[in-house]
Amino acid sequence: MITIVVDTIPQQFPKGITGLQIAHQIDLPFIQSVLALQVNGVTYDLMRAIEVDATIRFLTWDDQEGKQLFWHSSAYLLASALTILYPDIKLGIGSAIDQGFYYDVDIGIHASDGLNIEAIEKKILALASRKEPFIRQTLAKQEAVDFFANQKNAYKLELVEGLEEHTITFYQQGNFIDVCRGPHLPHTGFIKAVRILNMGGAYWLGNEKNKQLTRIYGITFPEKKALTTFLTLREEAKKRNHQKIGKALGLFTFSEKVGLGLPLWLPKGALLCDTLVQFLKKEQTKRGYQPVITPHIGHKALYITSGHYDKYKEDCFQPICTAESDETYLLKPMNCPHHCEIYNSEPRSYKDLPLRLAEFGTVYRYELHGALHGLTRTRSFTQDDAHIFCCPDQVREEFAAVIDLVLYVFGIFHFTNYTACLSFRDQNSDAYIGRSADWDLAEQAIQEVTQEKGLQTICAMGEAAFYGPKVDFIVQDALGRKWQLGTVQLDYQLPMRFGLSYIGADGQKHTPVMIHRAPFGSLERFIAILIEQTGGNFPLWLAPEQVALLSLSDKHNVYAMDVHQMLLERGVRSVLDLRNETIGKKVRDTTLRKVPYILVVGDKEMMDKTLSVRKRGVPTNIPVNDFIEQVCAEILTMEASL
Amino acid sequence: MITIVVDTIPQQFPKGITGLQIAHQIDLPFIQSVLALQVNGVTYDLMRAIEVDATIRFLTWDDQEGKQLFWHSSAYLLASALTILYPDIKLGIGSAIDQGFYYDVDIGIHASDGLNIEAIEKKILALASRKEPFIRQTLAKQEAVDFFANQKNAYKLELVEGLEEHTITFYQQGNFIDVCRGPHLPHTGFIKAVRILNMGGAYWLGNEKNKQLTRIYGITFPEKKALTTFLTLREEAKKRNHQKIGKALGLFTFSEKVGLGLPLWLPKGALLCDTLVQFLKKEQTKRGYQPVITPHIGHKALYITSGHYDKYKEDCFQPICTAESDETYLLKPMNCPHHCEIYNSEPRSYKDLPLRLAEFGTVYRYELHGALHGLTRTRSFTQDDAHIFCCPDQVREEFAAVIDLVLYVFGIFHFTNYTACLSFRDQNSDAYIGRSADWDLAEQAIQEVTQEKGLQTICAMGEAAFYGPKVDFIVQDALGRKWQLGTVQLDYQLPMRFGLSYIGADGQKHTPVMIHRAPFGSLERFIAILIEQTGGNFPLWLAPEQVALLSLSDKHNVYAMDVHQMLLERGVRSVLDLRNETIGKKVRDTTLRKVPYILVVGDKEMMDKTLSVRKRGVPTNIPVNDFIEQVCAEILTMEASL
Repeated sequence: MITIVVDTIPQQFPKGITGLQIAHQIDLPFIQSVLALQVNGVTYDLMRAIEVDATIRFLTWDDQEGKQLFWHSSAYLLASALTILYPDIKLGIGSAIDQGFYYDVDIGIHASDGLNIEAIEKKILALASRKEPFIRQTLAKQEAVDFFANQKNAYKLELVEGLEEHTITFYQQGNFIDVCRGPHLPHTGFIKAVRILNMGGAYWLGNEKNKQLTRIYGITFPEKKALTTFLTLREEAKKRNHQKIGKALGLFTFSEKVGLGLPLWLPKGALLCDTLVQFLKKEQTKRGYQPVITPHIGHKALYITSGHYDKYKEDCFQPICTAESDETYLLKPMNCPHHCEIYNSEPRSYKDLPLRLAEFGTVYRYELHGALHGLTRTRSFTQDDAHIFCCPDQVREEFAAVIDLVLYVFGIFHFTNYTACLSFRDQNSDAYIGRSADWDLAEQAIQEVTQEKGLQTICAMGEAAFYGPKVDFIVQDALGRKWQLGTVQLDYQLPMRFGLSYIGADGQKHTPVMIHRAPFGSLERFIAILIEQTGGNFPLWLAPEQVALLSLSDKHNVYAMDVHQMLLERGVRSVLDLRNETIGKKVRDTTLRKVPYILVVGDKEMMDKTLSVRKRGVPTNIPVNDFIEQVCAEILTMEASL
Repeated sequence: MITIVVDTIPQQFPKGITGLQIAHQIDLPFIQSVLALQVNGVTYDLMRAIEVDATIRFLTWDDQEGKQLFWHSSAYLLASALTILYPDIKLGIGSAIDQGFYYDVDIGIHASDGLNIEAIEKKILALASRKEPFIRQTLAKQEAVDFFANQKNAYKLELVEGLEEHTITFYQQGNFIDVCRGPHLPHTGFIKAVRILNMGGAYWLGNEKNKQLTRIYGITFPEKKALTTFLTLREEAKKRNHQKIGKALGLFTFSEKVGLGLPLWLPKGALLCDTLVQFLKKEQTKRGYQPVITPHIGHKALYITSGHYDKYKEDCFQPICTAESDETYLLKPMNCPHHCEIYNSEPRSYKDLPLRLAEFGTVYRYELHGALHGLTRTRSFTQDDAHIFCCPDQVREEFAAVIDLVLYVFGIFHFTNYTACLSFRDQNSDAYIGRSADWDLAEQAIQEVTQEKGLQTICAMGEAAFYGPKVDFIVQDALGRKWQLGTVQLDYQLPMRFGLSYIGADGQKHTPVMIHRAPFGSLERFIAILIEQTGGNFPLWLAPEQVALLSLSDKHNVYAMDVHQMLLERGVRSVLDLRNETIGKKVRDTTLRKVPYILVVGDKEMMDKTLSVRKRGVPTNIPVNDFIEQVCAEILTMEASL
């Protein structure tokens, strides 16, 4: 007998029992949707025998590991379908990915005609409807080699020959047999919907000296409805792609001449950045933050002191040497060392704490060429950074205030669905610096404050950095995609490394605690998310162009200019379109630029001192002064609250 | 006979005539104040014979060359006085400098007691009152060597032995004879006032392997009053030293750990920067500028294209290499290449021009350690940069608009005394790029516009860069010191190098003209000047702390906090002082921080809802609401106009 812990309850079962048998025996309520199980953290087929004492967890589609297994089996099924449809193509390797799966194949003679995607999808569904089991089996290595030599598949042969095991795992599904570590679904019948998404090239084993194979991407679901939802969201996500919208709205650009991954903010994008910065600056001033400005470089020695050089030198741009030989600088990868030096620029007393230093600091990190992606992965980015230096007994209050700010910011941008991921220390390890009592205080404070604020939390024990616990916020956007935004990090280390101190009420020297925090994280990344969240339809207060004035004909230009001037004087970002074009074209062009308010002026408006106002919809007629008051109020309201 | 041109009029004089003789012969009106003359650009003693045809110009104290000669003779006189007072000290070398002169001497046995400064000053004045002439004479080289060997002066001996001439020039004044190229004043009597300013160390011939001599600094004047004025201004300048005030007011700091010449802006300084930036941004938006934001690095190739790398590579930080081998970046020394790439990011039509791209761009230049000086010479600085891309026929209007902005900015900061230095091309040279007709247009435009605006101008022909004419503004501060501020530079080259173009009304491709401009120049340098101009007493709208609220005792704290909150809500930068200190100490501390308005609240104020208001002077009692309106109005007025 072995002891199996299910749902925290240990139970005795005969050695060699399978997951499926356990599920039946304990009358698992969701047994119909179980795909596999985890045995001591390792994923097992439902039919695989359990030989040792173990803690187990059943996996369904709702688990990330469940999805991965689902798509792994789907890749296998794709290979099976391809083999039936095109017996002469050679299979390479397939795998589950973040969203779906792929298989690399050498399509040989079919390269000219291409593959029939519809036929492949149909074949997969046909195989799925047969509910064929995935049967695990093992072969001796030589048998496996012979198997693929016989099939004349040089790719699989190379793979199997490269394996170090003496016994090789295979799976069989219908007539299709392939080398595969598994695990798999109990049978193909779980797969109810499939879509081949696209095809691309991929070198065999990722080596560009090898032959280029065809990579076939697909996705499957346990319900047809889920595929429809996926495709709809995918279409919507394509439409909202921040790079596409960024270009269409003239927000930013990249220049190979300037350098990859270094965004150039065009006028409208620069206005957007500036509006965000001013918004947060104002909020931070209210909340007792003080601005500082520091250079974009620092002595290499500064980062050796901070420990960043040792840990992140691979991620930095290479050092900058100077004519005067002993000076070597780094482009700053973070702002904290500079802020520590500002703290250190004068003696501090407990009366000066907390000291909250804030900077919109542009930092530079060397991402590899291939890792760059629009505004979400850049080589230069601006952190909405701040460092709070405080006494240990102020940590709770400061942490709570930071959470308030982060939630306020999320609210303003309508990010209503978020999770706080708490990273705490491993209580059994002593690999952490700082006094244990301070850690207890800090972790307790974090836990209590997040509870008080009613936050949905995930707590990862042992995931804290050695220098302090932290909280990351994961927000879900309008399309259900998850993004990591704000971070709050406690730090007991940097103050020590920089020899920071304050004179306490007791007249003694103490080391302050440091809190790193950034509600946006990176301005670039935040704007990318904001674009994808809103599809470029920014709220009025953020829109680079808030109001556009369109004249029906030349004779209405003076009136349009007058209203434009009145709006500018009230601080409204108004633009004029006095071109000699039809009003239809003017409205279309302005709509493409996603200007919230489009104002058309013609004879009637000019005579009545009104405006024909469209707010992303049907026009209504409003007196000029009423409109100005309304738009100013709307800008203010959005700035001030939700 | 030779032809001498005086004041553009050629006249005949006998060969060998002296400047003094000419001055008498032509009845020079200011003959009493003539110190020397320039003969074909070379400065001559008044008694030196003129042997060739020449254009001459008489020099007085008012000429920069006159002052230099005056101080050169004063250095000679200092050496003469030292020789009389301390016969055993050994003279090194003396020279005129920007403000006064110095002499390096080996003071030998007097090192322990030091020299008697008062006695030296007295001796100089005594020698001056004798009106002894400076008599030019020559010795054969061997005679000169023997002369100093005889005097046992190893320094002068080394000097003379190093000279390549066969005949060496000496001067005699009284009994003092020294090797000297001259020229000199006619006699010592011109020197009416002297002050030994300080003493320092200096290596013989500037080589640190040589012996360290004592460098004695002094200054002299042709009138006693001028010395008094000089000393007063010098005292005042010391008080206004921007580094001292910057430290006292907590505006900025430097950290050796971060790096020399890299300012760290402390909270109050960061507020000051931000207020200046917002001021200019607002002005620029009104005037049709559009903001952009670009990274602080760029591919080295970018600067090779722009030509900056060839010309300025010595002044740049060294290139930044990357793991991916073919990429090399530079910290940007200027913003223009980035703005050219933004121009290039989309096709442009003449209808899009002028395009005015503005950025507060922090740039990096490698100044040698020894050249760094506070905020006036740094390795990182923020330019209030903008580039106007326009058609050639828009240059005049754009230039005029830039001048308007520059003058508006100067007015706001009370810089009322300024000169525009125009640098034009040499009409006889063809070393300039761009069409000659365009240069004519541009130079004419600059000349006409500066005249129209009634500017005081200096025009330097042949001083233009090969790529375009420019205008630099030299402003005089409250102490009469001159600073170079704003610059406007036309550029025909960069648009060509970057292949910029626009489609003209004719449907053809044309190259735009580029105007570089920066009214502040550098934010850091501008703030340094502003501090020295105001002594840290910033105008209300700029003051980092505008209002300080001081409670007389604890029971007045709540009232003080209420008023503080009302001020904050109106956007006034108010600070609270609720410390348990005497009101006297609180007022003193606040005064040191140069807060424009100090508000004291006690029983009377609390009861009457008033404030005891001090604006850098006597307190007056003002109702709270009146004060808030008054201070808001004052902030606005100063922002809006002078």
